[in-house]
Amino acid sequence: MKLFTSHRAPNPRRVRWVMAEKGLTDVEIVEIDIMTGEHRTPEYRARVGVSHVPALELDCGETISESIAICRYLEALHPEPNLFGRDPQEQAIIEMWTRRCEFYLANPLMLNVRHSHPALAALEATQVPQVAEYNRIGAERFMRTLDRRLADHEFIAADRFTIADIVATVGLDFARLVKYRPPEEYAHLARWLEASRARPAAKAGA
Amino acid sequence: MKLFTSHRAPNPRRVRWVMAEKGLTDVEIVEIDIMTGEHRTPEYRARVGVSHVPALELDCGETISESIAICRYLEALHPEPNLFGRDPQEQAIIEMWTRRCEFYLANPLMLNVRHSHPALAALEATQVPQVAEYNRIGAERFMRTLDRRLADHEFIAADRFTIADIVATVGLDFARLVKYRPPEEYAHLARWLEASRARPAAKAGA
Repeated sequence: MKLFTSHRAPNPRRVRWVMAEKGLTDVEIVEIDIMTGEHRTPEYRARVGVSHVPALELDCGETISESIAICRYLEALHPEPNLFGRDPQEQAIIEMWTRRCEFYLANPLMLNVRHSHPALAALEATQVPQVAEYNRIGAERFMRTLDRRLADHEFIAADRFTIADIVATVGLDFARLVKYRPPEEYAHLARWLEASRARPAAKAGA
Repeated sequence: MKLFTSHRAPNPRRVRWVMAEKGLTDVEIVEIDIMTGEHRTPEYRARVGVSHVPALELDCGETISESIAICRYLEALHPEPNLFGRDPQEQAIIEMWTRRCEFYLANPLMLNVRHSHPALAALEATQVPQVAEYNRIGAERFMRTLDRRLADHEFIAADRFTIADIVATVGLDFARLVKYRPPEEYAHLARWLEASRARPAAKAGA
């Protein structure tokens, strides 16, 4: 298998992190330079179908894009350590928290960075400061929900580290590009984030 | 089990549609009036944790929000007809297409409606015509990808109807609130949409 990835983008890092947690070393890594538009070339689009990283090319020639679809596929091949849930109810709760972390934290923070970091102007037709601000406010609203959750939970979605923790940490880490730090009042979030960043696998793709 | 739903919102319809495809009738339906803010009451938030519909309350008391997490849970309890894939590779491809349909079609169309329909001004702090337009253009860019896919595929993600078709159809149907119609040049998309809308289960929650 081959993973098309970019060390500059947050979503590929989710996949690299999952691979590191599972100790996978049999996937060939192909770096795509999104700043020069390598993901928009006809060759890349013909292969993946869309201009997105990450994408996983299987040995049969089929290619899967979408980071969470790739991560869930890798879990099916390598079930341990379990990151997506062991039974239908746990899977549902982990997927619920993963989606919340993706839609209400990671995506708004990504939009904040893309609409405020000078070097990323190339990725947006127009950088709009109000879009950056709107998304920061939305992300901080969800951080409050997350802080309450983490007041009596060590991890976000289960009694162990899961894909939800990866998605949230990668989202918060990406915002460091614009020197973003979560509000200091969220002490439980800060405790969880420090522990998550200290995991050996956190360095993968970062 | 109890499903908290709103007939006015698109995401609960995904769950109702899945239930209808699977012939599930043992879930109690609780209608939540989002136009009067019933999803924002302390009672609802205490129960679900967030102000979102749909939410599924299990018999053990645990509540799951996020439409796709709920649908995948219902599939685990009632595997046929299969909507999420039969093996890891098929599951990955269906999840990839489902996420594409959600992020690049259904979500932009929802934002278009929320920023342009007069009756929905109550849901947005400020309706911004440029946001409506930006999202319509984004959705139509993905419709082109979808039209090419449907040129030689009867369904979006597999050789049968799946959750990806539900997510895309619900997204396009919701935009009918603002009399939106896909560009006529997308003939394959039109053929697929007509067939999808004609399914008996399509009426569920619509």
